[in-house]
Parts: sequence; structure tokens; C-alpha cells
Amino acid sequence: MENLISMRNLGVDKINSLIELAENIESGKVKSDMTGKVMGALFFEPSTRTQLSFETAMKRLGGEVITMSGTKGSSLEKGETLSDTVKIINQYSDIIVMRHPLEGAAKYVSECVDIPVVNAGDGANQHPTQSMLDLYSIHKTQKSLDNLKVCLLGDLRYGRTVHSLSFALGAFNPEFYFVSPEILNMPSYILDELDDLGIKYTQTDSLDNIVDDLDILYVTRIQKERFTDPEDYEKVKSSYVITPEILSNVKDNFKILHPLPRVDEISVEVDKLKCAYYFQQAKNGVYMRQAIITKLMEKCA
Amino acid sequence: MENLISMRNLGVDKINSLIELAENIESGKVKSDMTGKVMGALFFEPSTRTQLSFETAMKRLGGEVITMSGTKGSSLEKGETLSDTVKIINQYSDIIVMRHPLEGAAKYVSECVDIPVVNAGDGANQHPTQSMLDLYSIHKTQKSLDNLKVCLLGDLRYGRTVHSLSFALGAFNPEFYFVSPEILNMPSYILDELDDLGIKYTQTDSLDNIVDDLDILYVTRIQKERFTDPEDYEKVKSSYVITPEILSNVKDNFKILHPLPRVDEISVEVDKLKCAYYFQQAKNGVYMRQAIITKLMEKCA
Amino acid sequence: MENLISMRNLGVDKINSLIELAENIESGKVKSDMTGKVMGALFFEPSTRTQLSFETAMKRLGGEVITMSGTKGSSLEKGETLSDTVKIINQYSDIIVMRHPLEGAAKYVSECVDIPVVNAGDGANQHPTQSMLDLYSIHKTQKSLDNLKVCLLGDLRYGRTVHSLSFALGAFNPEFYFVSPEILNMPSYILDELDDLGIKYTQTDSLDNIVDDLDILYVTRIQKERFTDPEDYEKVKSSYVITPEILSNVKDNFKILHPLPRVDEISVEVDKLKCAYYFQQAKNGVYMRQAIITKLMEKCA
Repeated sequence: MENLISMRNLGVDKINSLIELAENIESGKVKSDMTGKVMGALFFEPSTRTQLSFETAMKRLGGEVITMSGTKGSSLEKGETLSDTVKIINQYSDIIVMRHPLEGAAKYVSECVDIPVVNAGDGANQHPTQSMLDLYSIHKTQKSLDNLKVCLLGDLRYGRTVHSLSFALGAFNPEFYFVSPEILNMPSYILDELDDLGIKYTQTDSLDNIVDDLDILYVTRIQKERFTDPEDYEKVKSSYVITPEILSNVKDNFKILHPLPRVDEISVEVDKLKCAYYFQQAKNGVYMRQAIITKLMEKCA
Repeated sequence: MENLISMRNLGVDKINSLIELAENIESGKVKSDMTGKVMGALFFEPSTRTQLSFETAMKRLGGEVITMSGTKGSSLEKGETLSDTVKIINQYSDIIVMRHPLEGAAKYVSECVDIPVVNAGDGANQHPTQSMLDLYSIHKTQKSLDNLKVCLLGDLRYGRTVHSLSFALGAFNPEFYFVSPEILNMPSYILDELDDLGIKYTQTDSLDNIVDDLDILYVTRIQKERFTDPEDYEKVKSSYVITPEILSNVKDNFKILHPLPRVDEISVEVDKLKCAYYFQQAKNGVYMRQAIITKLMEKCA
Repeated sequence: MENLISMRNLGVDKINSLIELAENIESGKVKSDMTGKVMGALFFEPSTRTQLSFETAMKRLGGEVITMSGTKGSSLEKGETLSDTVKIINQYSDIIVMRHPLEGAAKYVSECVDIPVVNAGDGANQHPTQSMLDLYSIHKTQKSLDNLKVCLLGDLRYGRTVHSLSFALGAFNPEFYFVSPEILNMPSYILDELDDLGIKYTQTDSLDNIVDDLDILYVTRIQKERFTDPEDYEKVKSSYVITPEILSNVKDNFKILHPLPRVDEISVEVDKLKCAYYFQQAKNGVYMRQAIITKLMEKCA
């Protein structure tokens, strides 16, 4: 592994190996020491949450972080190319973590520099460390990634996270339930891909009769702005709010994930239930990012 | 001590114990080591000075800091609740330092998370680490907090700092002089409280005949904007500017404090006098904040 | 050495000693350990690149950095003087690195505080750490600073960098070529100074017949805004774009430097040539800044 640009480059072996490493870092069995190493965190598109998660990961490993957030006042504004900008950060740091509004930017940068690059989101395209922390959270709670019943709920049309996750889980024989209002259905190119892989899925607009069988419910936010007629939004929104009532008969191993931030798609009363796992999921992100940094820096040691 | 939210929770014992710890950290007698620990600095209302003081405190102890400054571009803008925001920072860090424009915000946050919370200012309400560094500065220069003659000067009506300090010193049998233009007098609810505690104080609009008896003169800025008629401001302002002349007969142990920034309420010629203590006071803030962090993290160790 | 404010304070001995220290830090022969030390980075005028270079330098030495970038929301906006601001940072940190839009600001600040001050650029005046990293880059590639043929190209009129460098190299018996469009010629006060020092230089508007003899070509950007008539700019600009073609017969030791960012004054095809040294130059900046920090902190140890 030289970079982490997309889930599409990662096979089952690498996914399993990153999950194992994250587990060992979390338990303290593996001590990863980044003393004297510098991470260049380039957030051409600001994202406080993701930035703090990566910073925490690196700093808890003993490493240091230099950060560029936004492009205001930067040399890019003076007409410098992205390639030149990252080539200079290359001189200062040992690994680059970057978020960029344009698809393909992370891949392009990885070809400009000679240190590892981690894609922390490139437009609507990929956010592989989010997918890896999702997989880590699923593995921790289910003891396996294989043969799970997983429901993805909410905005399945525009959600980078759910596209990436459905693809990533595809290698582990899942049974999917895609629950969304019709105008936010999973795009057909994703369904075609799942068909090609022979993966079972059910598309529906309601959680009824599904929840009790699930291992994982992955909730995403439905944005009002996606609806041309606000009344359509008002009609559907309550059907996609998770409350304690609809969770009364869930399985013992059942967990709810959410990439956060949430607005009101999960009622706060759910937070107290043992199936509420979204805050722990955020913590898992730190361990998984530590594993990814560690794996990518091995080559450099 | 689980949190530091308000001076009202701190009794004499805890105040004395924090002062002793700050002294021991300053002298090097106590080595507090925060290696591997992360402070989440949440400045929902930016305050560069306070932020840098806390950062310095944590970093000199070997710890790390992750910082969120302002709310622009944060998940709060996407509709996330304050509770969710801090619950996620809870996953990343070991202690939270926060400033917020609303009264009560720090208390509320301390009930949302399971790590210590330090209030670095919540609106007009409390700024307890400022009060503690004021007490530390007084103790260092007077060798005791007991039975001191302390004058609070300037804007006593709106000044969070002087309210907090008068309350905090109340437990140590002070004799207060409250000097301000009439429209900026100490609020009556504070005076009532001091009356209940049996504390002696004098209210006046002039420093004349007071300075020579003082142990401590605590100066705050009078803001022009507080006056409805700008001419009223022009009339009074020179009465509240500290110059070397009015300090010609002060006691040997006399010191001037100021929370800073100052504008012109202390003449720069005063800076050279041995009674000018406000820059040292800023340095004391680092030691006191190190003591507070250390005390709050003990429980977690 | 107590501060680094201007190249004019540095003699040949101090320049040589800083270059030697940078070499020894780069090679690992000298271990400089800044553990427990704090750099106050005060960028009253933001400059992401310079800031990240200094941060990297300090952090790789084990030290910590507290940063103030811009003046928005700072105490300066509340009417605090620059002197007060830096006196407080003085309380928090062990060394100050500052950039300021006004000439002379760094010198002034060095007189306000009792810790070392590094000038990271004060308006059009000085940027001595840039000059020192330029000298380090020249020394590394030429094994000496003496008797070199150096061409400075581009905007020689307004370029702080080239003024500083021509002065700094003046002590090492150079032969200069100043190549620029006429309206961007080297100012006469610089030429007078070189005359006084007896330094040979040629002024011309074209690189023709010069490149093949050079040891160093130092390129700077020509800004369109400098020309009153945009057509004048269009006429000259291509004459100052460095391409592989004009470099076909350069000497073996020949190197191209550039303070970066570049826009199009060096063609990207040049990047692959062995004479392209500008990215390495940026890396050299980290070593030189480590040397400067180390030298200034010696006194304090």
C-alpha cells in the first residue's frame, strides 16, 4: 500500500489487515510511534470534523501535524498550480492527508509527490477512510464482516458514504436493504454493479418489516434541498426518523451507525439504547486512521 | 474536582490547593506529564489570547491540542446540536476547554460528556480560570490571600472579571474599594452578596486618598460605548488613567493587575515601575492553567 | 546572535556558521532538541507557506508552536498596542517568529521583548531567513559561496528577495547578471551599493549569451500589475520564461532557484532537469530555519 485513494484499490486482504491493525492499536498490542514524523493536512475544502479526527490520530501516535485549511491567502490564489503546492508540502512532511472539492484530485496529487497520500474526500467521489472506519465499526460489533443483513437508509442517491460502503461490503456477501424515498433511490449504476457481483438487495421506501431482521442500520440525513417541492419533503421525512418505538424488537447484535452530523433523523432518545453506536463509530475513526497512517508509513521507515 | 465551570463551585480548600499546585509546577517541584493526552479546545466564540494561554499550558506539559475556533464551516452550521458536537470531541480528546457566547453553555456541555470540562468563558457569566490566575498572582505577590486591601477600578458594572474576583476573594476577609464612574458602579446584587458575607467595601468615584493604603489595584478598561453621551465619557476618562504620579507613595508590596488587553487606562510609563505586574500576571495564567489541567486529569489517570 | 532581523546585521562569519549548522542538522551530525520549548508564530500578515516552513522546522526539532494568524478578532482590534501584544506572547513562548506588513516592525518588536525574534518578513524591507536558505542552497550545490556567476532574473525592482540576496552575496566576490525588462530594473541605490563594494555586474534585458556561463540562475515572477500598459507585459513576458531549450548548454554545476510560488516563469518541463533545484530549495528552508532557531536559542539554554 502506497496511498489510500479509493476503496476500489483495496481488496479483501488489505481491508482485513487494516481492521486487524486498528484492533491492535486500540488494544495497545501494537505500538505505532510517529515521533519526529510530520503529517501535512491539506484541506482545500474545509472539514473541521475530519481534520480533527486525523490530527488526533497522528498526535496520539506522537507525530506532528501542519495544516492548511481553505485556499484563502494561499499561493494557489497567486496562480500557483495544485501540483506545485503539494510538491512543496512534500518537502515539509512525511505523509499528506487531503480533502479537495474536485473528483480525482487525490489521485492526481499522489502522482505529483513521493510520499504517501490519504484521500480524505474528493468531491462526490471517494472518502475511503470513512468507509474503513465504517467497516471497522461493523466488524467490532458483529465480530465479522461476512453474511450480514445491512440496511442503508436515507439519501442513497447523493450519499458518497453509502455508495462507498455498499461497494466495500460487497466483497463480504451481504444482504442489503436500501430504504429511501423514491427520488433518493440508490443510483442504477451502483445497483448494476451489485447485480454483476451477485449481491442480494431489496429496494423499498419503508423500514416496516425490515428492522427486526437487521444486523446493521446505517442512517444518513435526508436534505430538504433535494426535493423540488418542499411539501414532498414534509410528507416523507417522518418515515425516516429513527425512534425507540421502531427498535423495540431488534436483534441483540443490532447496531445503528451514522456518519454524523445528524440533524433529526435519529431521535435523541435512541442515544441511550445499547444499539446506538454512532458516537463510538466516531472514536473508531481515530483508531482506523492511526492504522492507515501506520500502514502507509511502514514503507517509509 | 471533575470540572471547572464556575468559581461558585470552588471552596477555599480547592482554591488553596490549586494555588499550591501552580506554585509547584512553576518551581519545577511537581512534574506534570500530559504526554499522549489531547485537549479539545472549543472556542465557539474566538478568543486568541485565552486560546494561546491554554495551548501553551498543555503543550509545555507534553500534551497535544486540537482546536476548533468559531463555528463557520462546522457541523453546527449544518444543524448539528451543541450536544452532538461535544460528544464527538469527547471521542477524540481527554479534556475539553471551551468558550461560548451563551451563559450556562459550559455547565450544559459538562453534562453531555464524560471527560473534564474547563469553562474558558461563557458569555457574561463566568471565566473561572481568569479568576484563579488573578488569585494566584495576588497570592504570589502578597504571600497570602487573607486580609488584603484590594481596589477594583474601572467598569465594575459589566466586567465579568471583577464580579468573579470580588466573589472569589470574599472568602479571604478582604477590604474592597470599588472605584468607578457612577453609571458603571458594581451591580447591587453583588453588593448584597458581599453584605450577606459581612465583607467591608467602600464605593467611590475617585482613587484619591485610597492608593497609598492598597495592597492590590485591579484595573479594567472603561469602554466609551457604555456611555450614552460621549461627552460624559470624555469628562470621566482621565480620572481613571493610572500614571506614575498617583503611585508615588504606594506601599512596598503594592501591585497593579489588569486582565489585558489594556488601551490607555494604564500609562505605559507605569510599565517600568516595580508595582506593574500585569505582564507577569499573563505568565501566571499559564502555570495556573497547567495546575487546573493537572488536577482535572488526575481522576482520569 | 540575539535576533535575526536583517541580513545587514549578519557578517560573513555568522552566515558561514549558520550554513555549517544547517548542514550538520541536515546530516544528523548535530542533534538540536527543542523539547519543552514553544515558538510563538505571529503572522500579522498571513503567509501560509512561510508559516508551515517554520512550524515544520520547530516541530521536527521536538518543539511546540503557538500561532496567531491575521489580526481579526485579536486584541489589536480592541485597541491594544503591538508592544503589549508581543509582551504577552513573550510570557507564553521562548522565541518569536513574526511577519508584519510594516517595515521595521520586527526590529521594534525585538526591543519590546526579552526573547529572540526572527523576522519572517516586514513589508518590503527584509526577509532574512529566505536569504539564508537561498545562500544555503547555493552553498550546497556549488560547495562554496565564493566567486560565483549569478544571474537574478525577473522583477528586480520590487523583489525583496533579490535585493536581499544581492546584498548577502556581495561579501563573496560574485559576478552578477541582472536581467529584467527596463521598467523592472534593479533600483539604483542597490547598484550604487554594489559599486561601492567593487562588485562586478551586468545589466541587460535578455538572457541570451549569458546562461551557458552561469553557476546560479535565480528566477522571480514578473507580475502583470507592474505594467501600466498590459500590452507591454505581453510583449516582454515570453522573454523571461525559462524552457528546456535555453538550458541546453548549461554548465554541469548550474542550478535554477526560485523563491516560489511560480506561475509560468519556469516551464514545468524544466522540473525534470537536474538543474531544477527550487523544490529542494524549499526543503533546505526547513534545515536553515532549524539552524537559525537553534543558534538563537543557544543563549537561552
